[in-house]
Amino acid sequence: MSKKLGVAIIGCGNISGSHIPNYLKLDNVEIRYFCDIIPERADRAVEKYGCGTAVYNYKELLGKDDIDIVSVCTHNDFHAPISIDFMRDGKDVLCEKPAARTLEEALEMQKVAHETGRLLQIGVVNRFCDNVNHVKKLIESGELGEVYQVYTSFRAHRSIPGLGGDFTTKAVSGGGVLIDWGVHYIDLALYCIGDPTPLTCSGEAYCKLGKDMKDYVCTSMWASDTADFEKGTYDVDDFVSGFVRTTGANITINGAWAQNIGEAETFVDFLGTKAGVRLYYGGKFTMYSTLNGMLTEIKTDFATTGFDYGAEIKAFVESVETRVPNQAHIDRAVITSKILDGLYRSSDAKKEVTL
Amino acid sequence: MSKKLGVAIIGCGNISGSHIPNYLKLDNVEIRYFCDIIPERADRAVEKYGCGTAVYNYKELLGKDDIDIVSVCTHNDFHAPISIDFMRDGKDVLCEKPAARTLEEALEMQKVAHETGRLLQIGVVNRFCDNVNHVKKLIESGELGEVYQVYTSFRAHRSIPGLGGDFTTKAVSGGGVLIDWGVHYIDLALYCIGDPTPLTCSGEAYCKLGKDMKDYVCTSMWASDTADFEKGTYDVDDFVSGFVRTTGANITINGAWAQNIGEAETFVDFLGTKAGVRLYYGGKFTMYSTLNGMLTEIKTDFATTGFDYGAEIKAFVESVETRVPNQAHIDRAVITSKILDGLYRSSDAKKEVTL
Amino acid sequence: MSKKLGVAIIGCGNISGSHIPNYLKLDNVEIRYFCDIIPERADRAVEKYGCGTAVYNYKELLGKDDIDIVSVCTHNDFHAPISIDFMRDGKDVLCEKPAARTLEEALEMQKVAHETGRLLQIGVVNRFCDNVNHVKKLIESGELGEVYQVYTSFRAHRSIPGLGGDFTTKAVSGGGVLIDWGVHYIDLALYCIGDPTPLTCSGEAYCKLGKDMKDYVCTSMWASDTADFEKGTYDVDDFVSGFVRTTGANITINGAWAQNIGEAETFVDFLGTKAGVRLYYGGKFTMYSTLNGMLTEIKTDFATTGFDYGAEIKAFVESVETRVPNQAHIDRAVITSKILDGLYRSSDAKKEVTL
Amino acid sequence: MSKKLGVAIIGCGNISGSHIPNYLKLDNVEIRYFCDIIPERADRAVEKYGCGTAVYNYKELLGKDDIDIVSVCTHNDFHAPISIDFMRDGKDVLCEKPAARTLEEALEMQKVAHETGRLLQIGVVNRFCDNVNHVKKLIESGELGEVYQVYTSFRAHRSIPGLGGDFTTKAVSGGGVLIDWGVHYIDLALYCIGDPTPLTCSGEAYCKLGKDMKDYVCTSMWASDTADFEKGTYDVDDFVSGFVRTTGANITINGAWAQNIGEAETFVDFLGTKAGVRLYYGGKFTMYSTLNGMLTEIKTDFATTGFDYGAEIKAFVESVETRVPNQAHIDRAVITSKILDGLYRSSDAKKEVTL
Repeated sequence: MSKKLGVAIIGCGNISGSHIPNYLKLDNVEIRYFCDIIPERADRAVEKYGCGTAVYNYKELLGKDDIDIVSVCTHNDFHAPISIDFMRDGKDVLCEKPAARTLEEALEMQKVAHETGRLLQIGVVNRFCDNVNHVKKLIESGELGEVYQVYTSFRAHRSIPGLGGDFTTKAVSGGGVLIDWGVHYIDLALYCIGDPTPLTCSGEAYCKLGKDMKDYVCTSMWASDTADFEKGTYDVDDFVSGFVRTTGANITINGAWAQNIGEAETFVDFLGTKAGVRLYYGGKFTMYSTLNGMLTEIKTDFATTGFDYGAEIKAFVESVETRVPNQAHIDRAVITSKILDGLYRSSDAKKEVTL
Repeated sequence: MSKKLGVAIIGCGNISGSHIPNYLKLDNVEIRYFCDIIPERADRAVEKYGCGTAVYNYKELLGKDDIDIVSVCTHNDFHAPISIDFMRDGKDVLCEKPAARTLEEALEMQKVAHETGRLLQIGVVNRFCDNVNHVKKLIESGELGEVYQVYTSFRAHRSIPGLGGDFTTKAVSGGGVLIDWGVHYIDLALYCIGDPTPLTCSGEAYCKLGKDMKDYVCTSMWASDTADFEKGTYDVDDFVSGFVRTTGANITINGAWAQNIGEAETFVDFLGTKAGVRLYYGGKFTMYSTLNGMLTEIKTDFATTGFDYGAEIKAFVESVETRVPNQAHIDRAVITSKILDGLYRSSDAKKEVTL
Repeated sequence: MSKKLGVAIIGCGNISGSHIPNYLKLDNVEIRYFCDIIPERADRAVEKYGCGTAVYNYKELLGKDDIDIVSVCTHNDFHAPISIDFMRDGKDVLCEKPAARTLEEALEMQKVAHETGRLLQIGVVNRFCDNVNHVKKLIESGELGEVYQVYTSFRAHRSIPGLGGDFTTKAVSGGGVLIDWGVHYIDLALYCIGDPTPLTCSGEAYCKLGKDMKDYVCTSMWASDTADFEKGTYDVDDFVSGFVRTTGANITINGAWAQNIGEAETFVDFLGTKAGVRLYYGGKFTMYSTLNGMLTEIKTDFATTGFDYGAEIKAFVESVETRVPNQAHIDRAVITSKILDGLYRSSDAKKEVTL
Repeated sequence: MSKKLGVAIIGCGNISGSHIPNYLKLDNVEIRYFCDIIPERADRAVEKYGCGTAVYNYKELLGKDDIDIVSVCTHNDFHAPISIDFMRDGKDVLCEKPAARTLEEALEMQKVAHETGRLLQIGVVNRFCDNVNHVKKLIESGELGEVYQVYTSFRAHRSIPGLGGDFTTKAVSGGGVLIDWGVHYIDLALYCIGDPTPLTCSGEAYCKLGKDMKDYVCTSMWASDTADFEKGTYDVDDFVSGFVRTTGANITINGAWAQNIGEAETFVDFLGTKAGVRLYYGGKFTMYSTLNGMLTEIKTDFATTGFDYGAEIKAFVESVETRVPNQAHIDRAVITSKILDGLYRSSDAKKEVTL
């Protein structure tokens, strides 16, 4: 009987709920530790999932030899130190997105992964989703001709997650809508067009609608549990726009956690010389092409939509066993980090930055 | 009895049909000449409108003292020389948009206008349209708070005007979708936000879908009369994307004469801190705001939509009489020309240009 | 430490589920008794909510000094006797809507409330809902100008609650769609326009589609637990239409528990000289107005929609403590009862009745 | 060869355009006179249709023996005197709707028709339309069971025809939206349910939105040629609501030339015990019924929609030849007049009137 791989979950908040059940589905792994600095969260996880031991400080887990795999599900500010500590401790790491708060942190993580030979995968889950992989395959097969331009639109009406909490505090999160939503859109766009190298970034990340926290009007906040409207901080971007050149297609972005436009427009357009695709984020896609002198609009359907965390976790565990990094490896994710960083630097400098 | 103002129409193609009937509605002007290098066009205009004399070379009209006003309705390449010749001849000029093929030509036109003291108005008709002026008033009255970002989307599926004709020959037109459609969108955006000074431009203008003219599939071409698929030229942009900083709001643009995305998205978004407006080009607009703690979506309706050439011509004639330039004066239009030029230069240089 | 207010729930059927959890949220009250003539219902409530004592006859609770507040959640026929008995016993009462089966009963309840000085509030929950209060505020602030006409439409396709049960037996319920749904629509309309005095009622309440109970076709019945298609009764109105004059705006009504028109039209139109509002029942509203010579259509959004029983219960308890009746007091609710009564009498007499 | 019937058209304004071409399609009639008090109108009709003689005073046509048929297409105030004069002169008359400004005038017209034995048909064109006749046939065949209630909704947003012209001057038109649009809706409803006798009317006709003519905001006025915003009159109803009892189904009405609700709702609902029909005015209809225990929604389609003036004129000419009155005879139309009169009287008296 083969020995099972031991898993430690670091951070037991919302996003861990996308990791844990998917580890539990696999025969060859076993969750051995649930760690959270809020003790009740760790305790509750042990109780809920009926396995593992609760710990409240991840450093207690360094040196444990019943851990092979670590899932880092904390706030962004702990992504780098925890991932690095565990890699240096000989573990393979799946770290949630964004890789880190800043490019510097992400590059340090990448460096340690190479030095230690450990796996460092990032939770850019769209790279494992059926809709995205279908589009990638269409592009690779030449169906779209040359893809010369990508437009990513991640615009919501008034959807700031939790005013005055960790999402809206730059020191914790590294940024707002660009780093939180943009990371997914830019990453899947890069993935579909073959992970080209970014060259220039020009854009602006605005901190506007959430600044006057008490008077911000909305119908709900999707991550308001840690929010504090009285004393909390709001110093991140709620709208971002910019233009990115790469060695492949160029990318234009418009994103809003909050904007005074009511239409929700969340999609990625791949503009090719032969055909184009509009991919609805987390959903279906439509391909526009030609056939025998006719214009065609092709709607597609397939079994799995939504965000396939199961496929992400399964691929990670396979990589751990085979030692072959997959499409979500830090070497790929760091490209996205470079763009996020470039756009934030361009916004500060009020001019284009060359990468 | 007051003497009537004499008008000469230079160029009797499509767009002259938006000028001529609107001059005929006014009591104090009289169209005296119809000029076109295609003689039948000039002759046909004389017959159709029952007035004026046909001429085939505009130079014959220089020195005539029964001309006060000149409407330049030619291809873009003749905008500058004709406008300049008539201004030096002491006439007031209404020149169709874009001001000229290049920024250099536009600046020369502006210089001559100032030297001669003649009026030079450009046909940026949106500045006279009710929908645009309603939005401008809302912004000026503070209804939107600070407008920090504008998004102009002038994207059509496959709508190249006339492959192989003057529209698609850069030497004649100066460019494609950016100079032909973009000029209107950028100009109306600048107008609404108070004509700020542009600072930087980064973008790309692609020449892609029309290049293989014979195999280009579409359902129609809206200006195909002079097209020649066999021997004609197609060397202009059919897709453009970019980011523009100004001393006011920044502007992001996406435009397509042709793209492999079937959705027609032709609107301008004004993103303000208190409210936002989506203005549908040539149509209505929706304002998104808040009221008593509620989010509001305000659809507006008003008598006049579409492109009000009548108001443009009327305002021009009034300016001629009062000697007071109006909102479409070359001094304003040249700001738009700077942005068009900046984007084309950025596209060539593959980097941002500072204006 | 302040003493808590003791609550007795009389009737543990469906509607009590909107009262009980909202009492439990308040710190200063304690539910001490659950009463239902069906013993299992009372027992189940004690078990489910983990508090209180089960009783099966409300008369056992008269004279108890650990009761301050009574929620009457029974069928309509017991609203009057129970409310009156408890008021005479010195308790404050929140009675579900309609106040009673008939105007006579409602007036008797009002009389006893005045005689005893007890609070008698009626469960016209819309008076506590955000959507309704937003509309009321807009009207009060003059935003609509003079509101001259209200149209209430509460028309569903085939939605009779429970054929052959208490809802469809006039002796129990006092009527059908008019008293069950109409009470809410008319009451919220009156509330928004300032509770004017009704003057005349002309209309007809039809008993048509449910009469042949066994052959009544529908997709579901939302209150079918006590229905008995074999031996039950159906003698109430399933369609009602009429015209009501008041000292303020006039009110036109169309209502259907069941009709052979498939469109569900459940809204209230407030027609004002400056603006109008269409309020979707239990949902959002749209305001139609003018601005700078434009017609405007304003859609609104706000955090809380649906029926806010929590606000109703909270306001009731506050009224109990402050002795200040709120907007759902019997003195207001009785105005609605007069209109229901007027319409039923007009329907019987086949002519208008003057109130 | 049979002699042709001679036609005189009295009034050559808009509505005559629905009569004249339909007479011209028939072999057995000949238009011999076009009469209008505005001489150019009469002259233009002679020129346009290439037949007949222009006259400017209808009295000149009395005594002419080459006239058999008269179409009265004037303003409402001349319907009665002209129809009566021509009937006394031995002619058959097709008079536009409404029959007259008031019930008194309509009854006088009916009396003269009976005295003289002449045909007097009213232009209630819906009685000749396919959609309406299909519904009538469904009702007559018992498909809907007992039709117990009709709801007529003729509500438009801001659609007053011509502020300050004859439409909005009560002395000329007899009223506003009720007499102009309501006449059609009520007439077709009565026709479909077998022309029952009306019993009571209670309602209100409001003169609200058009009163401040200069500040009335709208996008267009469909009959603005004779409007005079400076000196004209606006003293008619722009909103009407009411309840009408008949010996058959009762009728509820809501109508608006102008209201501050943006939804256009122009339909008639026939509520039957077995099925119901929603007839879209001038369009298709949907029937809601049941089949084998299922609910069914039946959309219908047929060749002819819109307003079939051709059928109306053809039926009139046939009646002239056969001496058999058709469904648009004054004896039927006068029932509608009674309801219009009843509603206006009820509105003035603020109480129901019994007919």
